[in-house]
Amino acid sequence: MNAKKSIILLSGGLDSATTLYYAKDKGYNCYVLIFDYGQRHKREIKSAVEIARQLKVPYQIVKIVLPWKGSALTDASVKIPIERTLSQISKDIPATYVPGRNTIFLSFALSYAEAIGAKFIFIGANVIDYSGYPDCRPQFLEAFQRLIKKGARDTEIAIKAPLIRKTKLQILKMAMKLGVPIDKTWSCYSGGETPCGVCDSCLIRNKAFSIMKKKV
Amino acid sequence: MNAKKSIILLSGGLDSATTLYYAKDKGYNCYVLIFDYGQRHKREIKSAVEIARQLKVPYQIVKIVLPWKGSALTDASVKIPIERTLSQISKDIPATYVPGRNTIFLSFALSYAEAIGAKFIFIGANVIDYSGYPDCRPQFLEAFQRLIKKGARDTEIAIKAPLIRKTKLQILKMAMKLGVPIDKTWSCYSGGETPCGVCDSCLIRNKAFSIMKKKV
Repeated sequence: MNAKKSIILLSGGLDSATTLYYAKDKGYNCYVLIFDYGQRHKREIKSAVEIARQLKVPYQIVKIVLPWKGSALTDASVKIPIERTLSQISKDIPATYVPGRNTIFLSFALSYAEAIGAKFIFIGANVIDYSGYPDCRPQFLEAFQRLIKKGARDTEIAIKAPLIRKTKLQILKMAMKLGVPIDKTWSCYSGGETPCGVCDSCLIRNKAFSIMKKKV
Repeated sequence: MNAKKSIILLSGGLDSATTLYYAKDKGYNCYVLIFDYGQRHKREIKSAVEIARQLKVPYQIVKIVLPWKGSALTDASVKIPIERTLSQISKDIPATYVPGRNTIFLSFALSYAEAIGAKFIFIGANVIDYSGYPDCRPQFLEAFQRLIKKGARDTEIAIKAPLIRKTKLQILKMAMKLGVPIDKTWSCYSGGETPCGVCDSCLIRNKAFSIMKKKV
């Protein structure tokens, strides 16, 4: 069991929840890591905790205070892009990009993995139906893997991104098959009590759900 | 001036203080980043703040709470190695290694740089008279540079480690030449009010001072 000890980055969204269920299904010993980084959609933290609890896996919440702004997700004065087409969404880096976010998340995951002797770090990043963030792409994850090889104490820790080349529809199907509590996942960026339906994250998610509906 | 906007990682020790003075001397526009990560030698934070204030450069203190242990610097129950010879110090990774520390520090520096449009990140890492930490070596810094190239929003941000191949004696000489307030710097790991004189960090520092004394 110890050989499959893993850190799972869990935001509370569909992708990371599916990644957690996938890892658990494959027999990995999961230690969930959740970040409270001042995101306006704090609701996702609640989702992440519920998901981890339901699956009965241990979790840690790390609180990060970024004293600088620079993202629509952490600065209420910056507007979240809405009602964009899917081709617009993945074209440029949007205002919702949080500077250095995945580098920070993975560096904490690396620290946690080294501290408890975990051998894997799972991340739900994907680059097909995604928001255009540079730190979600395979070349970023490969570079982080190389960083571990070059500068960690445990150079054998492996990054796993099982969703990296899946469409949102494929992820949704996978989630259903794995029994992910999809109703508990939270994707919306806007910070309301109910999903706004018009932010990039809602649009990508809803498109997959509507295709799925048509097929059923 | 904006083209030379830089983030400087400042621990409050001799190396990072010298790096800050070096950057300032070379005309870089310095934004200092200080970390409060639960280190037992909290005294270094006070030193870092004093040094930044004296040089009249803006600084930010980022508080990091690592919920996991795994280092003598963050866990009072783990003993700090003492009275080791210099050849023992650099041989293995010591108990004072903090899992993922420089990866975390650099990831915050990257975030800060992207948020304020800084083009350089200065770090005082060096591998000659050092504590044997894997995340202080040139190959680690090169891998982090590559990570920025592959996954940051601003792929042009450059990591600078001007002390990387200098001996502690060379750094001390450099510090004196640059007018670093050496008396304000703090290197001791032990967390006391005065330097213990026997931890790895004190031993490396004191050796340089004693050679310097003999020469004067």
